[in-house]
Amino acid sequence: MKRYFAELFGTFWLVFGGCGSAIFAAAFTELGIGFTGVALAFGLTVLTMVYAVGHISGGHFNPAVSFGLWAGGKFSAKELVPYIISQLVGAILAACFLYLIITNKAGFESIGGFAANGYGNLSPGGYSLTAAFIAEFLLTMFFLIIILGATSENAPKGFAGIAIGLALTLIHLISIPITNTSVNPARSMSQALFAGGEYLTQSWLFWIAPIAGAIIAGFIYKALFDKE
Amino acid sequence: MKRYFAELFGTFWLVFGGCGSAIFAAAFTELGIGFTGVALAFGLTVLTMVYAVGHISGGHFNPAVSFGLWAGGKFSAKELVPYIISQLVGAILAACFLYLIITNKAGFESIGGFAANGYGNLSPGGYSLTAAFIAEFLLTMFFLIIILGATSENAPKGFAGIAIGLALTLIHLISIPITNTSVNPARSMSQALFAGGEYLTQSWLFWIAPIAGAIIAGFIYKALFDKE
Amino acid sequence: MKRYFAELFGTFWLVFGGCGSAIFAAAFTELGIGFTGVALAFGLTVLTMVYAVGHISGGHFNPAVSFGLWAGGKFSAKELVPYIISQLVGAILAACFLYLIITNKAGFESIGGFAANGYGNLSPGGYSLTAAFIAEFLLTMFFLIIILGATSENAPKGFAGIAIGLALTLIHLISIPITNTSVNPARSMSQALFAGGEYLTQSWLFWIAPIAGAIIAGFIYKALFDKE
Amino acid sequence: MKRYFAELFGTFWLVFGGCGSAIFAAAFTELGIGFTGVALAFGLTVLTMVYAVGHISGGHFNPAVSFGLWAGGKFSAKELVPYIISQLVGAILAACFLYLIITNKAGFESIGGFAANGYGNLSPGGYSLTAAFIAEFLLTMFFLIIILGATSENAPKGFAGIAIGLALTLIHLISIPITNTSVNPARSMSQALFAGGEYLTQSWLFWIAPIAGAIIAGFIYKALFDKE
Repeated sequence: MKRYFAELFGTFWLVFGGCGSAIFAAAFTELGIGFTGVALAFGLTVLTMVYAVGHISGGHFNPAVSFGLWAGGKFSAKELVPYIISQLVGAILAACFLYLIITNKAGFESIGGFAANGYGNLSPGGYSLTAAFIAEFLLTMFFLIIILGATSENAPKGFAGIAIGLALTLIHLISIPITNTSVNPARSMSQALFAGGEYLTQSWLFWIAPIAGAIIAGFIYKALFDKE
Repeated sequence: MKRYFAELFGTFWLVFGGCGSAIFAAAFTELGIGFTGVALAFGLTVLTMVYAVGHISGGHFNPAVSFGLWAGGKFSAKELVPYIISQLVGAILAACFLYLIITNKAGFESIGGFAANGYGNLSPGGYSLTAAFIAEFLLTMFFLIIILGATSENAPKGFAGIAIGLALTLIHLISIPITNTSVNPARSMSQALFAGGEYLTQSWLFWIAPIAGAIIAGFIYKALFDKE
Repeated sequence: MKRYFAELFGTFWLVFGGCGSAIFAAAFTELGIGFTGVALAFGLTVLTMVYAVGHISGGHFNPAVSFGLWAGGKFSAKELVPYIISQLVGAILAACFLYLIITNKAGFESIGGFAANGYGNLSPGGYSLTAAFIAEFLLTMFFLIIILGATSENAPKGFAGIAIGLALTLIHLISIPITNTSVNPARSMSQALFAGGEYLTQSWLFWIAPIAGAIIAGFIYKALFDKE
Repeated sequence: MKRYFAELFGTFWLVFGGCGSAIFAAAFTELGIGFTGVALAFGLTVLTMVYAVGHISGGHFNPAVSFGLWAGGKFSAKELVPYIISQLVGAILAACFLYLIITNKAGFESIGGFAANGYGNLSPGGYSLTAAFIAEFLLTMFFLIIILGATSENAPKGFAGIAIGLALTLIHLISIPITNTSVNPARSMSQALFAGGEYLTQSWLFWIAPIAGAIIAGFIYKALFDKE
């Protein structure tokens, strides 16, 4: 059971910290943190929670990561469902608290798109479905290759949390303008549920592309780098 | 005794560096460091001092952290008072030096709110008392879960200073617009004493919310993650 | 074979992440990541891939690094050609995907200079050929001294990925205005092929200067720091 | 001898990277790196060189650090002069290359203040001599406490380079507006020689205040934290 709580708390923190920094601080006057700050925040949620509870649950905090580790032979299939449920519960709970805070701001009118992901007319930079799919697929694929490599036997011990957390920072530095950056279906779902409308109907892409990229990464890693 | 000096120096550095970067550099023309730079500064004060003197005192630098570690069963109740006094002395001393420097600036007129914390009309983004309480409570709660987890037996050795310092950076990336970010009653008190007026009358929240969040975190961590 | 795949994937990630952050996110409205974000992105591509596959291939991801390690006596001459081919294939493949994404942006008109390097009229800040050569030479030279030093016997174990990745961040913080920062012929080539024209005719400098700086660094390191 | 070369190369890199990022990139249009980027650059010069050559020379790269380590009982008095000469040679050589590059920029007219330090009318934010002295004294004092603590017997092994490098980043985040941040007489001297005039006549402060702060730190550390 404590593994599931670790995933729940970790994914709560990822959404509360990553999406929260975007909602509260990204565009706060000229002192706001911009995309660089949001990218840093997302990465640090994972870095901090990997060191805090990674030794308990493995520190996935992301359904795509769970699928990718399963494809790479590092995670049991029968744990997929409880892990993903824990991640979704944590993510949605965090979104509730973000909603509670933002609606207690003076002059609050609407959450707009919250920190939801999107393509086409909902892409921050107007990138098409094709561009969004390629970006989410490739970025999650490399995210998993980094996770599988940095946690492998021969990698330096203890540094995986830094490499994995900062990989998520890097991914956001690249792709916030494309899809607002998902690579994580739990994070996307938690925001789309509140943003609603077209954000919700587009949310399939942020399940399919990251999970497909992660699974391919698992197979590639096993085939190319993991065997003797 | 050397533990108390370590806490005094560490909390001095936290206030001098964190609040100092906010006061001197955040809004310095278009080259200023903004909230991202202030967030980085606060985190680095803790990261650097944990490596410098963490092996002496445990590296709390924050009354809420001391309470949280006590609730988590990692810190003796009878050390609470001397630790908190050391932290308050360090924090207030640092504020004195910040005051001395800023009043020696050409054209200085007023310290305004210094780097004090606030809610409602004193919240940078106009967030209500409710929003401020939730944010300070939750952020300190997760801060303590990270501290307890990253310093636990099974976490990678030596990395706790990075995880804990950067957790404080992350917390600031999220919440400067909400309360100017406290999660630390000593830091808040040191600024409110100089800012005075309503900042001082609001300072109760920055004792109650962080300490409550920290204590709950201690109990949660012990119940969920610490037992066999 | 798996070493060549590691170099291919690593260099793909360097170009996709580093140049991609520049193309998609650097100048995205007032929230864009600017040169600081691009510098961070380039560094994190290397940091993450050194932890992921550095134990497989050594983590060069850069022909100049391969030459420098050879000059420093740490890399076999007969591996130079296969490594550099792997790096070029990875870099050019990444540029193809960047092209595919950017051309799927609403209102796309031209890639302009892509993220290509240049001097004189193609230098972001108007720096001459002489300035560009000195900068690329010196920065690659110090990059290699850091790589050779941080991976040496007596350096702390495991930290090389942090030092080397953040060295690339630092190099970009200094020199994006001068040449758009290369220090890596594979990165430069991949962009010049798409940018074409004068970017392509200037690309000789981004082979000669980095490789010359790297080779000199190898000799200096061996002569000054590596012997008993 | 190789220790002196290590100090020379390290201090060259500190000035070339730290001051170079300020001169070339800080104010480059709206994409420039600002004070946050410059702070990061200074810190990363030290972080990278501590991992590269710290095991050879101790990685001072700063006369104040050498004095502070001597006061703390960690460095031999008879090494002070050759270390400081090596640091000055490296710093001034780096300034020559910075000069060579900036004068090769299209439309170059004057180096202005280069990246020199100053107080009063030469302080970026108009801070007085008193404010400048207090800031430089205190910041160097804490810099040395961090260096002495992070390299002590009981501190986690290998992490000192991260703590020390990022301490320098933090110091810049606080104090660029006050004095343009020195805490390092070799760095200050190298720029004042080129900036000339009043920058040169003010340079005494950037010898006296950092070295005084460093020596006091050595004594404090020995008295409070180093004994059984």
